[in-house]
Amino acid sequence: MHSPIETDAVIIGAGPVGLFQVFELGLLEIKTHVIDSLPQVGGQCMELYPDKPIYDIPAVPVCTGRELTNNLLKQIEPFKPQFHLNQEVSTLEQQTDGRFKIVTSQDQQFLSKTVFVAAGVGAFQPRTLNLDGIEHFVNKQVFYKVQDPEQFSGKKIVICGGGDSALDWALYFLGKAKSITLIHRRDEFKAAPQSVAKLRELCAEQLIQLEIGQITSYESVDGFLTEISVTGIDGEIHAIELDSLLLFYGLSPKLGPIAQWGLDIDRKQIAVDTATFQTSTAGIYAVGDINIYPGKKKLILSGFHEAALAAFAAAAYLAPEKLIQLQYTTTSPKLHKALGVSPPTFG
Amino acid sequence: MHSPIETDAVIIGAGPVGLFQVFELGLLEIKTHVIDSLPQVGGQCMELYPDKPIYDIPAVPVCTGRELTNNLLKQIEPFKPQFHLNQEVSTLEQQTDGRFKIVTSQDQQFLSKTVFVAAGVGAFQPRTLNLDGIEHFVNKQVFYKVQDPEQFSGKKIVICGGGDSALDWALYFLGKAKSITLIHRRDEFKAAPQSVAKLRELCAEQLIQLEIGQITSYESVDGFLTEISVTGIDGEIHAIELDSLLLFYGLSPKLGPIAQWGLDIDRKQIAVDTATFQTSTAGIYAVGDINIYPGKKKLILSGFHEAALAAFAAAAYLAPEKLIQLQYTTTSPKLHKALGVSPPTFG
Repeated sequence: MHSPIETDAVIIGAGPVGLFQVFELGLLEIKTHVIDSLPQVGGQCMELYPDKPIYDIPAVPVCTGRELTNNLLKQIEPFKPQFHLNQEVSTLEQQTDGRFKIVTSQDQQFLSKTVFVAAGVGAFQPRTLNLDGIEHFVNKQVFYKVQDPEQFSGKKIVICGGGDSALDWALYFLGKAKSITLIHRRDEFKAAPQSVAKLRELCAEQLIQLEIGQITSYESVDGFLTEISVTGIDGEIHAIELDSLLLFYGLSPKLGPIAQWGLDIDRKQIAVDTATFQTSTAGIYAVGDINIYPGKKKLILSGFHEAALAAFAAAAYLAPEKLIQLQYTTTSPKLHKALGVSPPTFG
Repeated sequence: MHSPIETDAVIIGAGPVGLFQVFELGLLEIKTHVIDSLPQVGGQCMELYPDKPIYDIPAVPVCTGRELTNNLLKQIEPFKPQFHLNQEVSTLEQQTDGRFKIVTSQDQQFLSKTVFVAAGVGAFQPRTLNLDGIEHFVNKQVFYKVQDPEQFSGKKIVICGGGDSALDWALYFLGKAKSITLIHRRDEFKAAPQSVAKLRELCAEQLIQLEIGQITSYESVDGFLTEISVTGIDGEIHAIELDSLLLFYGLSPKLGPIAQWGLDIDRKQIAVDTATFQTSTAGIYAVGDINIYPGKKKLILSGFHEAALAAFAAAAYLAPEKLIQLQYTTTSPKLHKALGVSPPTFG
């Protein structure tokens, strides 16, 4: 267990709205820590459409998910946010002193006065194989990610999926594993073309077995997984012996532990007040796709507005005695200082 | 009187939020006419800080008012908005058929099913000289803009102001007017340096008289303005004979006729519902700095969000029987068609 980080604000989610939340809090001189379940910042933008064009960011006629993310990172640079990636928030509890204790899946602890839930559609987690009882083998013989490649040396491994992760690992284990079987639901792959070409070559040489179909059952002996069965499109069933099963079905978002934090939830979204974007718990705000209020549209630009109003509300919550004034980045010397820019000269 | 333009939507105000309102309505296939009191689009951004940096447009680390305006113009290009500039809305009345009849100061008429008030802090109008009774001479001997330069030929003219308008006209009338006196409150000018240099030269040659001070009184004979008095910083008073007085004190925004449209007004702003940004009159929406609601901050980015939600509300108001679905510009073929772009390829 790491020693807890004490801070004024924790942002859960490093998607575009979480990143812009850093900016709006930064203008009000509130420092932030940002947690995300993905290994990189950018959220859905980077996970789902890094290279696809977005047309409805105001004053940005077109940009990709990656460009949007990079522009936001540049914009928040002056505020030096600290990122805690590749970990989801497991628990969030309010302490008797009013602060929120947050613990992540990497056992990082935070004690924060305010929390901003910018978790989009939830934490991205691996899609799982839907077979009765298979969960008992997870992290023993069934894996959704590879943390220690060594453990598969000399093993009969079966890899499932058609994307980069599946093909990259299939190619990686060549010559290391005893045997490699790749299973995909169809004979087309989303992975990079050169990986696909290499795979075809190795299949032709019978160094990798390719099975087109889906896993429909498994066999176990004395608590060990020994065999899976793949049903092809033609209905034919093949049994495959194995030591390890590596599943790369992609990521899907899950609301996950957020539902357990005692916040008012309406149709899987967190209910907020539109004046402050505060949740049913004072000091916790929800912005972006995860919140709901009358008229809500799941638009990135709405999340940006919500982040601005939530920041002002949090500033008032953190220092109730202080008068928080709206200042403009074009004219305010205070904001110029915060942004680290020179003031413009006015005639 | 021009024949009325019949349309689904009229936007009052061509500032950044008015421009983005075109975009959001365009995505929902609603065509727009935009009216502004200024001769160019861009509103306060172009009038007050065209070349000054703005730092808080999301995903745009820095841009000037002019760049923001140009980017928005580029973004709305696919929707071909029609602009009606240099005219303010004088009257807005709801007809018995539910449509709104709008008449501008250039006598352009509109019959529109919906109206979007994106008028910022109001219509920009010339700052006026604050002297009892001077208003009786306006457009006879006192002018806030020059529409017919010919009428000043051979006249003794007095020009007030220190900006480009004042100096440009002072230099323009050289050799045309009988005499030119420039009055400014201090011996420094905001006008372009080359104009100021030229002015200094002509003052040295006594071709233009320069008076530093403020107009504090006037004389009239038989309803004609004959003389003004200028009080200098030292308290000394100079009388100046004149035929015409040209005042260029800059522009200042006025809520103006908007207050007369029967909308609920709260502290000079239009009250709106945050689910729809509709005003107290169904079919009229208010977005950007002109509206007020709990939590409101006068931020451009809030106006963008408000424009999006107002567009969805208006689409439902215009076609109550139609199901309006939120679609994404990254994935929707319908929106790609509206934007005139090719769909991206997904793997």
